[in-house]
Amino acid sequence: MADPFEQLRERMAALADMRNVAQLLDWDQQTMMPPRGAPARAETVATVQRLSHEMFVSVETGRLLEAAASHLDGAPPDSDDASLVRVTQRQWDKARRVPSELAADLARASSVGHAAWVTAREQSDFARFLPYLEHNFELIRRYVDCFDNFDCAYDVLLDDYEPEGRTREVARLFDELKSELRPLIAIVEQHHDRVDDSLLYGDFPVVRQRQLVDWLLRQMGFDRSAWRIDDAVHPFATGFSNHDVRITTRWDEGFLPTSVYGAMHECGHGLYEEGIAQSLQRTPLGHAESLALHESQSRLWENMVGRGRPFCGVLAPQVAQVFGDGLAGLEPDALYHAVNRVAPSLIRVEADEVTYGLHIIIRFELEQELVEGRLAIRDLPEAWNARYKEYLGVEVPDDAHGVLQDVHWAAGLIGYFPTYALGNLIAGQMFERAHADLPDLDAQLGAGELHGLREWLREHVHRHGAKFTTTELLKRVVGGPIAVSPFVDYLKAKLGQVYDLDLR
Amino acid sequence: MADPFEQLRERMAALADMRNVAQLLDWDQQTMMPPRGAPARAETVATVQRLSHEMFVSVETGRLLEAAASHLDGAPPDSDDASLVRVTQRQWDKARRVPSELAADLARASSVGHAAWVTAREQSDFARFLPYLEHNFELIRRYVDCFDNFDCAYDVLLDDYEPEGRTREVARLFDELKSELRPLIAIVEQHHDRVDDSLLYGDFPVVRQRQLVDWLLRQMGFDRSAWRIDDAVHPFATGFSNHDVRITTRWDEGFLPTSVYGAMHECGHGLYEEGIAQSLQRTPLGHAESLALHESQSRLWENMVGRGRPFCGVLAPQVAQVFGDGLAGLEPDALYHAVNRVAPSLIRVEADEVTYGLHIIIRFELEQELVEGRLAIRDLPEAWNARYKEYLGVEVPDDAHGVLQDVHWAAGLIGYFPTYALGNLIAGQMFERAHADLPDLDAQLGAGELHGLREWLREHVHRHGAKFTTTELLKRVVGGPIAVSPFVDYLKAKLGQVYDLDLR
Repeated sequence: MADPFEQLRERMAALADMRNVAQLLDWDQQTMMPPRGAPARAETVATVQRLSHEMFVSVETGRLLEAAASHLDGAPPDSDDASLVRVTQRQWDKARRVPSELAADLARASSVGHAAWVTAREQSDFARFLPYLEHNFELIRRYVDCFDNFDCAYDVLLDDYEPEGRTREVARLFDELKSELRPLIAIVEQHHDRVDDSLLYGDFPVVRQRQLVDWLLRQMGFDRSAWRIDDAVHPFATGFSNHDVRITTRWDEGFLPTSVYGAMHECGHGLYEEGIAQSLQRTPLGHAESLALHESQSRLWENMVGRGRPFCGVLAPQVAQVFGDGLAGLEPDALYHAVNRVAPSLIRVEADEVTYGLHIIIRFELEQELVEGRLAIRDLPEAWNARYKEYLGVEVPDDAHGVLQDVHWAAGLIGYFPTYALGNLIAGQMFERAHADLPDLDAQLGAGELHGLREWLREHVHRHGAKFTTTELLKRVVGGPIAVSPFVDYLKAKLGQVYDLDLR
Repeated sequence: MADPFEQLRERMAALADMRNVAQLLDWDQQTMMPPRGAPARAETVATVQRLSHEMFVSVETGRLLEAAASHLDGAPPDSDDASLVRVTQRQWDKARRVPSELAADLARASSVGHAAWVTAREQSDFARFLPYLEHNFELIRRYVDCFDNFDCAYDVLLDDYEPEGRTREVARLFDELKSELRPLIAIVEQHHDRVDDSLLYGDFPVVRQRQLVDWLLRQMGFDRSAWRIDDAVHPFATGFSNHDVRITTRWDEGFLPTSVYGAMHECGHGLYEEGIAQSLQRTPLGHAESLALHESQSRLWENMVGRGRPFCGVLAPQVAQVFGDGLAGLEPDALYHAVNRVAPSLIRVEADEVTYGLHIIIRFELEQELVEGRLAIRDLPEAWNARYKEYLGVEVPDDAHGVLQDVHWAAGLIGYFPTYALGNLIAGQMFERAHADLPDLDAQLGAGELHGLREWLREHVHRHGAKFTTTELLKRVVGGPIAVSPFVDYLKAKLGQVYDLDLR
């Protein structure tokens, strides 16, 4: 009889392949597919999800898991084998409560909703989009009803994007974060005239932006033999193996940071996928599972590296060289100040590092109200606009710049948003730790040498794939759980420099 | 209890989805995937093939087929329902003799072989490629061994690309074709100085070629809402539904026909996929199954329309307008003559319409010898070169221009080549019939109006999808089986004009 461990690995390898198929269907839909392909694509996505789900939740998987567990022979918990059994067991326990038909319906609705959102956003037409959103939340309620082992409905959802994440704990962290961010924003707002970011607005031909982004990505480790970059309405990153990493970006000819920092952000995600150990490929550990950890990587590269003073020292001359004209003599400090200007705004993905957290907190609050039925979906635009007024002091002019700006709810991704702000917090912790481990890190970044940091992240974070929950991994890397203060300290230090203020 | 017909449709819909997945994996590998993604892709392809095969060949499919057959209630054989049962039954009878593991191995080897071929062709290195080819033929032999209900090994393979096609019949047609082509080539060769094609060689920037190809494709019915065109080393067409059609082409800056006629060719394939009836989508009838019929469409558009005198009347001014310079005053007759010049050459996909058949006959003969073990794979380059010398009178300078030029054997597609020449014959029959049905067809083509012919093909060919074998469909459209003479008559008429000869 074959080794039960081998059998489990084989079954999970086929499921990893099917996960890649689902990711490719989604990548293609977002980057390549002609629009009228959407209805057929939704059916294909649903079938792949149904077949994968049936195969995963079968009794046979449970039997193999049990047999493999009894063969672990005291393997240490952080070994590949023990991690495979532990993580697969956790996923199986959750998935088997969900009927395969519901899993297929969710996948189909995600694909259909995504296509509908593209049009609705273009036309800023929430009413047209409402039925799709109502259908998504109806399915989400049916999904939540499959579980009786969570404290609240939102925990069920959050756990899909942040394994073992809990709403209460996130709310506690966000309360602390909010109490730090709001006074910080208030102070900086009082001195808004100290920072000028007008150099970021102008006429930036896409062909030149591509030159700049090519340089940036090469510095980070992007390599055409194993990576791609394409355009997408809502940029994202995905990976089909550690040697097939796909990132996307978008280009704004009037505003430089969209492509530059968007590309660094997605490349940060891509480095995570690329860095996962070869031994974990084609297993459930072969992709990062915690989106908070994933986002910590993208935000660390985008903001802490890309918007940091050291790297601005090499980025500014590149910008000057590529665009010339008014930017010909661009000084690093001018760039550093401009890209760190704080200003409450409407669009999450264009928000500065400080107000960004409030964009997330608004979504986190609204999602809970929607899931618990305290807010009707048709009333969402009104609630959205009111919350933006209250938290950020901005008036939402239309739904395209409001509730329709993000793809997530359209694609059925409810409970996903908090991972973005958690990612910022974790990035703060890791960047602090990396500085402690690499005393000359700032000098490296200032010389445009990014491989030292990349290798540090690979060693401490990337290579482990989905082995550890965020709590487990953070304990290994920084010695404790998610914390707010390193991120806030980082912000205060930066804003102190940029705005010439004493914020300690 | 659910309607067994409904259950069969549902099962086959899931399989049609999985077929789309396999096609997307292949499209992506050929157009988008970074090269180092190949090993993981091969595993994904194998898993998809294994799961699809397992699902299809299961006893349950057989039971549903039987139940559905008994529910047909005398539905006419050309009805959707009767065709679904008949075609699915034929496919099931064949597939269930093949172990799923072998189906997966074949799919994996196809993906791996394709990637290896790209490099081997670049380096013109047959020795490096030999192990992959030997592995493919080893698998093919195991595949053939699954069957005892065919007259010969090659019949098993041919039947996969040309359902119910038989080697003996193809050989008979090819003997007749060869006996017509060789004297025709000999006569034309004697008058080779009567046709000048130098205008096709020059400096054609890709960006302008794209303009020309865009115009051409729009004339044919290409529409960005449901189609894509991308670059590929070995151009091909595929479709994921009648509203998601993908074609590919390649660009040669020194030789105009590569992109122009390549694009028309692939668009001809695409029109077939687009034209399949909505009622057949997500069924086994939703894609054309006979590659000979498929190729009849591509060759009809490429050669009979695109290289025909009427359409040259609109194409020539377009070429003149796009490229200007030496082509500014391009006369339709000059273009017509140039694109129909006959000259024995090395590369199949660049061959003229007349010598093309000999390229195929060489492959058809060699494939049979390889499959039957009469020719060792390591001796293939020598045999290839000798056959080219004998049939076409050309010396093969290296394997890149010889045995490594085509992707097919690398991808395990053995038995596929004859469908190309059969497609020419069928195109000849259909074009003759279309002229009979549409008396002003030449006037339409001369005015650049292609929709009349497109609708005729849609009505008589495309909409039926895989309902009919080639023999059945041809009987409906032209009243008889595949025949050589309409194609040969067409060639003689054209060459008579181009070379100013009496060839009747």
